[in-house]
Amino acid sequence: MESLKDLQLRYESLKGLGLKLNIERGQPGDDNFNLSNALLNIVTEKDIMTKSGFDIRNYPGGVLGLPEARELFCGILGAKPEETLVGNNASLLILSKVLMWALLRGLVGSPAPWNKIDKPKMIVTVPGYDRHFLLLSEMGFEMIQVKMTPDGPDMAEVEKAVADPAVKGILFVPTYSNPTGDTVSDETVTRLASMKTAAPDFTIFADDAYVVHHLVGDPKKPKNLLRACEEAGNPNRVYLFSSTSKITFSSSGLGFMATSVANLTYISKLFGTMFIGPNKAEQLRHVKFLSAYPGGVVGLMKEHAKLLKPKFDIAEKVLSQELGSSGLATWSKPEGGYFISLDTVKPVAKRAVALCKEAGVAITPAGATFPFGKDPKDTNIRISPTRPPVAELEKAIEVLAVCIKLASAELDGAGK
Amino acid sequence: MESLKDLQLRYESLKGLGLKLNIERGQPGDDNFNLSNALLNIVTEKDIMTKSGFDIRNYPGGVLGLPEARELFCGILGAKPEETLVGNNASLLILSKVLMWALLRGLVGSPAPWNKIDKPKMIVTVPGYDRHFLLLSEMGFEMIQVKMTPDGPDMAEVEKAVADPAVKGILFVPTYSNPTGDTVSDETVTRLASMKTAAPDFTIFADDAYVVHHLVGDPKKPKNLLRACEEAGNPNRVYLFSSTSKITFSSSGLGFMATSVANLTYISKLFGTMFIGPNKAEQLRHVKFLSAYPGGVVGLMKEHAKLLKPKFDIAEKVLSQELGSSGLATWSKPEGGYFISLDTVKPVAKRAVALCKEAGVAITPAGATFPFGKDPKDTNIRISPTRPPVAELEKAIEVLAVCIKLASAELDGAGK
Repeated sequence: MESLKDLQLRYESLKGLGLKLNIERGQPGDDNFNLSNALLNIVTEKDIMTKSGFDIRNYPGGVLGLPEARELFCGILGAKPEETLVGNNASLLILSKVLMWALLRGLVGSPAPWNKIDKPKMIVTVPGYDRHFLLLSEMGFEMIQVKMTPDGPDMAEVEKAVADPAVKGILFVPTYSNPTGDTVSDETVTRLASMKTAAPDFTIFADDAYVVHHLVGDPKKPKNLLRACEEAGNPNRVYLFSSTSKITFSSSGLGFMATSVANLTYISKLFGTMFIGPNKAEQLRHVKFLSAYPGGVVGLMKEHAKLLKPKFDIAEKVLSQELGSSGLATWSKPEGGYFISLDTVKPVAKRAVALCKEAGVAITPAGATFPFGKDPKDTNIRISPTRPPVAELEKAIEVLAVCIKLASAELDGAGK
Repeated sequence: MESLKDLQLRYESLKGLGLKLNIERGQPGDDNFNLSNALLNIVTEKDIMTKSGFDIRNYPGGVLGLPEARELFCGILGAKPEETLVGNNASLLILSKVLMWALLRGLVGSPAPWNKIDKPKMIVTVPGYDRHFLLLSEMGFEMIQVKMTPDGPDMAEVEKAVADPAVKGILFVPTYSNPTGDTVSDETVTRLASMKTAAPDFTIFADDAYVVHHLVGDPKKPKNLLRACEEAGNPNRVYLFSSTSKITFSSSGLGFMATSVANLTYISKLFGTMFIGPNKAEQLRHVKFLSAYPGGVVGLMKEHAKLLKPKFDIAEKVLSQELGSSGLATWSKPEGGYFISLDTVKPVAKRAVALCKEAGVAITPAGATFPFGKDPKDTNIRISPTRPPVAELEKAIEVLAVCIKLASAELDGAGK
């Protein structure tokens, strides 16, 4: 065990390196983006008319997206083309629009618009995704926090929460959850789909951002939420969201959504009051590029995995070396997705992240994985290992590990 | 004057031609779109880093849009870059998002979210744009109809309406109004900017979709609403919207908005909860294409006018020939924009449009230019002459004129 003094010396020497490293946000690496560069200019004036008969430059085409794009992306969510909507970049925007209309008008089966309730409530999983929390709180939802477990949302907590009719839904990441990397089990899916809810319009908002983002060769394939809800007799209970933000480009990709045909008919009519339709040129770029890519989306994701797996491996290696026998932290070993979730044993997450910052290593602010940035135990740290090159990442994780040890030692010192 | 029988014979013979013509929606012609075809693949992997320092493939860049795009488009709205937001396609979507947040949270200076009022009210101009009416009604606004005049919204009616604190704003088209082609006068702008309103957060939503869409060489240049509101001491009163839907491509263009820096700071924070930012690749395509176009946006609009002016001219010619001395209709002679607004003298708009449809000519449904599709006098018909080739348009307008004469004669006959 390194002493406080040893750790201080080691920290000062790391600080002296003048590092400027960033493992703050879940962003692909430049090498990941490079795989899709051909997408940028793949559509030319020769492609103006789609096979489905639309001029990509003109208005007609509808709010649901190009038929070719719906056909291409539905499979990713285990849905049928007629259950799928493809939009512009950002699935978060599609989710926001559904939530907005839920508040202003209600969804299929709603007894009233959700904002007629003084404070509509939404279940969220913790640790979870900061942008979900921010969106919900700005929209006026009260968040009910339930634990994320290796099987997905803690279903005992969920089933307890949904006895309240003001609880209108759950928003979470079903596959390789941000940040824990957990994926729903078949049992969780079945329970979510079939549980009795006090609100007749209780809705599952599943942000399946990492659904094809595997790091292992033989990924788990959980039961599909859309099909499970259908089987349970609650066909309109779920909306699935995903995007190509980490398949092609984060800024100029496509978001998409799948839900029952009844839901899609209802919500696309409301979406249709907001715009005539998404950018069809960008949709055609994706269709052309991904259809031509060897192995399609699956083939492209394998190439991404080849670039990302070594980063998760080096992070695991350094964390094991530095903290493995320390008893100071545990962390996830994800089989996909974009994050490693680390929990310190002592309440030192904030202090460790602050120490990192001082040493030139930017990490997601401690607490960000909880609503309002408040981690009640101050133990969770989200590591985003995907963007920096391996050598930089190795250094960043070393700094983080040293900072966790130093912060823990400081606390011990303070307690004496 | 042609007799009812003459008109019936002429109508039957036109019907016998088996026409299939469409002057229903305000869409550019293929020749207009062709001017921008180079835009489709103008950005390649060599352009990945913008001058402003953003990778167009990655997330960072912000909700306000690429600095280069803000710089380029602000001038169209007479705004400064720091007052301008550039989004994805469709200004209607940007408008929708502002209205959504106004309802859920309120705008700068709001005493409460607008949906805390039982039925917030919005002034609209008639005849006007059907998509505005649809959006407002689906969102739960009550619409207060005021007449569109050659000087813009009827200000006596507007000033009367804003004495009601539930009247939260006005939504209209300030330049070459849809469908009348009217443009606000300086006096209207000054009165809108300076009038006393019962609601402290009364807001002007100006959909300036046709702001640079001139058909004449020396267009009127009305006072800028943003500057006028600033001068009147109501700097946060106005949001301006526009897009490149009829500059480059209707489906794959860009929407943009200008408002005070205080408003933009407030609303972009809320927009930022819905997505990380717009598609930067599409923004860079526009920046590259429009910056390189001879004469820039102005130069491109002159090329559009060359293609569109003959269409407005032929429509005017046929209407004059067929209806000029009939006393059966009056119509606008727009100096810009996308529409001709025709008013029959007798209440026959619905019947005339139905006759057109039977004869294979699709026209915007009569009534569409009023909320809920209800034209109280049944006299207004919107003509969209921009999309068909000149020869087809000539035939379509002839059919419309004959149908108006026939419908009017039928009514006279019925009255006897």
